[in-house]
Amino acid sequence: MPNHARLRRFLADMTSLVGGARQDQDEAAVIEVGGQLLAALVAHDDWLPEAMAGGASEGYLQHLLYCDPHERFSLVSFVWGPGALTPVHDHTVWGLIGMLRGAEVDQRYELDPASGQLCPGPTTTLTAGDVAALSPTLGDIHQVRNAFTDRTSISVHVYGGNIGSLARHRFDLATSTARTFISGYSNATMPNIWDRSRDGESAG
Amino acid sequence: MPNHARLRRFLADMTSLVGGARQDQDEAAVIEVGGQLLAALVAHDDWLPEAMAGGASEGYLQHLLYCDPHERFSLVSFVWGPGALTPVHDHTVWGLIGMLRGAEVDQRYELDPASGQLCPGPTTTLTAGDVAALSPTLGDIHQVRNAFTDRTSISVHVYGGNIGSLARHRFDLATSTARTFISGYSNATMPNIWDRSRDGESAG
Ligand SMILES: [Fe+3]
Ligand SMILES: [Fe+3]
Ligand SMILES: [Mg+2]
Repeated sequence: MPNHARLRRFLADMTSLVGGARQDQDEAAVIEVGGQLLAALVAHDDWLPEAMAGGASEGYLQHLLYCDPHERFSLVSFVWGPGALTPVHDHTVWGLIGMLRGAEVDQRYELDPASGQLCPGPTTTLTAGDVAALSPTLGDIHQVRNAFTDRTSISVHVYGGNIGSLARHRFDLATSTARTFISGYSNATMPNIWDRSRDGESAG
Repeated sequence: MPNHARLRRFLADMTSLVGGARQDQDEAAVIEVGGQLLAALVAHDDWLPEAMAGGASEGYLQHLLYCDPHERFSLVSFVWGPGALTPVHDHTVWGLIGMLRGAEVDQRYELDPASGQLCPGPTTTLTAGDVAALSPTLGDIHQVRNAFTDRTSISVHVYGGNIGSLARHRFDLATSTARTFISGYSNATMPNIWDRSRDGESAG
């Protein structure tokens, strides 16, 4: 039985955070405090429901774990099959990436306002427990791949909106052109984490 | 494809309601406004996901549709098999019952403070579109049954807490004694209603 209490605690704290008067107008505060909350969540790998941790034999899956009813934030598990690689893409909202299992390589890009060209920025390898941030002000364009070609990796992402339903962009590096896309979600059902009467039960 | 937009709208409005400064301290306001929101939800029978509408060949099922992350409210679909009947029970929090499909009979009870005896109160038959309220101040004890012995009925309930995880009471009418219980939920998974990219898709 996964430790649903950790996930409930994270969702309660994130809800308080996005509902705060200061945070409503202060992206830096959301990223700072939200990053601490996400770091606490990915510090343990005992809470992700199994249905949200699998299914990516190749490519990647984006499972919705929770969406705030005002769509102020959403939480997804990103399951990376061996060697999986995203297109270069943006998000249009702030985002936090917490590495739960395995590792991923995060290659940033910057759009040069003068030339309109996409230029490579820093590359970071995230390992279990690490947290990274993006946002339209900090830099919002990247390409991500599983650091492993022989196993699944899993990261947990929080975004400042209903990420699967937002119109955002994929970029063609050769031409620096953008194409609008909406990612959707991989899962039609979500785990019921609210049944505290089952918390003590063993799996199976 | 169920009309998830109706359910999303209800959850957004309920979240605003329970987060309001006045409503935090005013049960009557939550019941009045929440009752209007629930009446608008059950005025149409085109939004309940199929997995949340079935499964009760006998007895009844309580499917969690949504729980507020601060556990200020929860929304469940109650699926009544033919002739299903609850024990006499309370809730310990405010509750709103919206009849979506079929009909149910709601028999209220009052605990007489002098004698400590349970006395029958009013009986109401709810049909599709009707909304009823309960609360510790208005009266919180009732017994409910499907009005039909030959078909399923479905009501949608909102409670002022995580109803499946609250310690509350079942009553023995013969002795007027109470026994604590926690109902839990019937469902281990919940529908993902947040994928707007699927809203236009047909069922199947
Ligand atoms: Fe990304
Ligand atoms: Fe009841
Ligand atoms: Mg590291």
